[in-house]
Amino acid sequence: MIEINTPWVQTVALNPPTLQDNTADADRLISALKATIQSDTIDVDLALLKKLPALLRKWEYQVRCIVFKDRHRWLLTGITDAADAAPIAGLAIDLGTTRVVLRLIDLITSRTLAESAFDNPQDAVGPDILARIQFAEQDGGLDRLHELIIKGLNQAISSLCATIKLNPQRIYALAVAGNTTMTHLFMGLNPRWIIREPYIPAVNKPPVVKAGTLGVRVNPLARVLISPNIGSYFGGDLIAGILYSEIYKNEETAILVDVGTNAEVVVGNKNWLIACAGAAGPALEGGVTRMGMTAGPGVIDKISIDPETHEFRVHTIEKKPPRGICGSGVIDLAAQLYLAGMIDIRGKFQPSKCGSRLKKIDDLLHLMVVTADHSGTESDLTISQADMDSLIRSKAAMYTILETITTSVGMTLKDLKRFYVAGTFGSFIDPRSAITIGMLPDLPTESYKPLGNSSLGGATRALTSADGLEEMDRIRDRITYLELNVNQEFMNRFSAAKFLPHTNPALFPSVKVG
Amino acid sequence: MIEINTPWVQTVALNPPTLQDNTADADRLISALKATIQSDTIDVDLALLKKLPALLRKWEYQVRCIVFKDRHRWLLTGITDAADAAPIAGLAIDLGTTRVVLRLIDLITSRTLAESAFDNPQDAVGPDILARIQFAEQDGGLDRLHELIIKGLNQAISSLCATIKLNPQRIYALAVAGNTTMTHLFMGLNPRWIIREPYIPAVNKPPVVKAGTLGVRVNPLARVLISPNIGSYFGGDLIAGILYSEIYKNEETAILVDVGTNAEVVVGNKNWLIACAGAAGPALEGGVTRMGMTAGPGVIDKISIDPETHEFRVHTIEKKPPRGICGSGVIDLAAQLYLAGMIDIRGKFQPSKCGSRLKKIDDLLHLMVVTADHSGTESDLTISQADMDSLIRSKAAMYTILETITTSVGMTLKDLKRFYVAGTFGSFIDPRSAITIGMLPDLPTESYKPLGNSSLGGATRALTSADGLEEMDRIRDRITYLELNVNQEFMNRFSAAKFLPHTNPALFPSVKVG
Repeated sequence: MIEINTPWVQTVALNPPTLQDNTADADRLISALKATIQSDTIDVDLALLKKLPALLRKWEYQVRCIVFKDRHRWLLTGITDAADAAPIAGLAIDLGTTRVVLRLIDLITSRTLAESAFDNPQDAVGPDILARIQFAEQDGGLDRLHELIIKGLNQAISSLCATIKLNPQRIYALAVAGNTTMTHLFMGLNPRWIIREPYIPAVNKPPVVKAGTLGVRVNPLARVLISPNIGSYFGGDLIAGILYSEIYKNEETAILVDVGTNAEVVVGNKNWLIACAGAAGPALEGGVTRMGMTAGPGVIDKISIDPETHEFRVHTIEKKPPRGICGSGVIDLAAQLYLAGMIDIRGKFQPSKCGSRLKKIDDLLHLMVVTADHSGTESDLTISQADMDSLIRSKAAMYTILETITTSVGMTLKDLKRFYVAGTFGSFIDPRSAITIGMLPDLPTESYKPLGNSSLGGATRALTSADGLEEMDRIRDRITYLELNVNQEFMNRFSAAKFLPHTNPALFPSVKVG
Repeated sequence: MIEINTPWVQTVALNPPTLQDNTADADRLISALKATIQSDTIDVDLALLKKLPALLRKWEYQVRCIVFKDRHRWLLTGITDAADAAPIAGLAIDLGTTRVVLRLIDLITSRTLAESAFDNPQDAVGPDILARIQFAEQDGGLDRLHELIIKGLNQAISSLCATIKLNPQRIYALAVAGNTTMTHLFMGLNPRWIIREPYIPAVNKPPVVKAGTLGVRVNPLARVLISPNIGSYFGGDLIAGILYSEIYKNEETAILVDVGTNAEVVVGNKNWLIACAGAAGPALEGGVTRMGMTAGPGVIDKISIDPETHEFRVHTIEKKPPRGICGSGVIDLAAQLYLAGMIDIRGKFQPSKCGSRLKKIDDLLHLMVVTADHSGTESDLTISQADMDSLIRSKAAMYTILETITTSVGMTLKDLKRFYVAGTFGSFIDPRSAITIGMLPDLPTESYKPLGNSSLGGATRALTSADGLEEMDRIRDRITYLELNVNQEFMNRFSAAKFLPHTNPALFPSVKVG
């Protein structure tokens, strides 16, 4: 027997009962566990209790206990033979609207055992939150959406476990981070009131639920920790992200930005946290241009333009022939066009500098990025003036949101010591380009820290510490949520930000057009 | 809306959500409840959460919340329209080996709404604990026993609710008191190790379980509180009895005796409690004589014998023609025979006094109690010398147990201020007769207090106060359990008690043979 004590796995060696020491099996085990985890509140499920007497005798009272910390008590969720060396696993899930990512964790070592991802099968019903909520209101719609995600998860869990030959029954804890609608659909809660004024979720702090109750095929007594949300438009994925970033622990004020169709922003430190969310526009996801697409093989993620020759150097993911451009690619392109003088401070194409790259298609100016003979689609890849205008509006909206939240706490963007950028976008974006177009503030580039999948990171952290759920609850309760009122002041800021990099170049001293 | 606040039912008036106050539905309700019940630990089930948003809107945020206090937290188990006047009910259950008694309680007023009883259908499998545990070890045996009691309960609940036109879904809490084997079978726990040395139950403090999990057809979220036990032979029915008797609350030392095949005894006060259990013999239940039976119509429960004429006056339950005799009747009979000189101090029939009532059947002396022409069975009702010997052994065992436990705490039986006698036996027994034969100590008869069904009484109390379960847990933890060692000292006491009333008549000054 190797003695192991982690938050979730405790080795317990019991004295077998005698006539002099004839406490019941469950009470004997719980009493030893109370001493080990120093808690007076440990409950055990009836389903486990039924198996306990036979298992204790089979393993001669030398067992490993798998526990879980609910909000108000500890729970004994499983026991194994103390001599059994197979992993005891947890599963962190980033429950995205588009993509779901799984990470299998060893609950003893906290090591990652395996990862995988799959497209959210609810996409078959509707691509976005709005479409899915509307579908949920149809007869049987909610059940169907719940079923789709649970089935998808079960398939993915089964495959993931197979890769490391782990019995899914060995998964004893789950942590799920998702936006408010996704976690509602995961739990089978009606999301109807999320999109209707005054935008009320069914729950902000979801209860801890048994995997068996939700139909997730792991150990049925595994507890599912669902990250709390602030409200309908600030979800548990972001609370998980804050947990992961640790900005709530530090003395220095930092900012965390999650960029998507919505931009979600948190500013704060160990004393205070303020958050807001606002529409930044789909341009930043690469969703607006005709050639826009999400990151994948053959997608342009980096571009540089020679300031002298105006020659384009295009980099694609996996170096496949270019098929389209993603958000970070569009930002690079705009920054390089601006630095080369090919667009002006309003983002308008300059025919004198663009030369033969400019074309009129359907009466609209297009700039040739890749010609058909070099593209993977066998047609020209171009960006239109309308695409560029849309990008300018998106970047202006983003900057305005950042400026508004920072100003609301009496600070300026220059005061931020760290700037965390979450998500795939955060990993691909070149901060220099984002600064050049005035989308992100002109901070030293080393201030920018890509966080990667912070939602998954937060869910993982919740599974590898004893107080993950409480910590997320506390973060949630500490956040002041700032409603972004699109008032005159906001519009003034927005108008000033609709230039490259900004109406006030003093805000971007590092950006110099050659 | 009538504002009602009891431990389990709380009226809550919420402000409907607005853009400025957009907390989620569940969090809004829980937050108001936290203020009302002054607790920071309230959880809500997913199944209720699913219905919450629609119900809150339907009832315009004016609701009655049904809550339950688990060991470490409060639970929201149901909500109703604040304007709905139908009762919100709880169900107390005395889960006896032979008989099951139900009491339906109004959780708002604590009033009893209805009561009923039925024979434990597990009797079909085996009449006693031993037979049932052995049956439980057969293939499917445990499931069958669990099913029998649950089906029996469901039928009884359905009938009981029908009598007062209550929807069983309106039952939101259950309290169950039973001996350790009965509660194990009720939960579906294997009782196998209860009867095997060192006699270990699966659990002493059963978890609070959902009615739906057990298959009990009331509100599926109703919580089932199961009274804790001390061990295999000192069950939750007795803990419930102690709760009901309140001996654990008083300054004065009192004794509580539950008489059956086993005698269970508790002595104590608000500072200490000591308990023991021992075999008193089936004679006290009327189980040993050929004419013995449990109390029911036509059963002799009282007998008096004219000391001069030796004429028998027999009283039967419901005054039906006599069919047999119950425990209290046997004790009355023995006391009266002794006072009339018809048995001697060893309990032997005295032919000179018994006259024609004595008969030899199968070479054994029998005393005629009721002749065939007066009996309800059309045959003679007699008691044999062997029956009488058995009664003497039983009463001697009982007295020895009482003396042993009292001596163990340095007291004598005379020091006891109150003597509670639980159960049907306690209600029927004539303390004067029990003293006369030396089964109970020679205390003033007003010290004797019949408790009636104290198990049901305790279950009822647990349902009508907010801390019933904690109180029972505390009682359980405070009890010192005295193992009755049948050593020389015990045997000496037993031998001394095998006379009527006792070898030492000074212990029974009030008993005088005319």
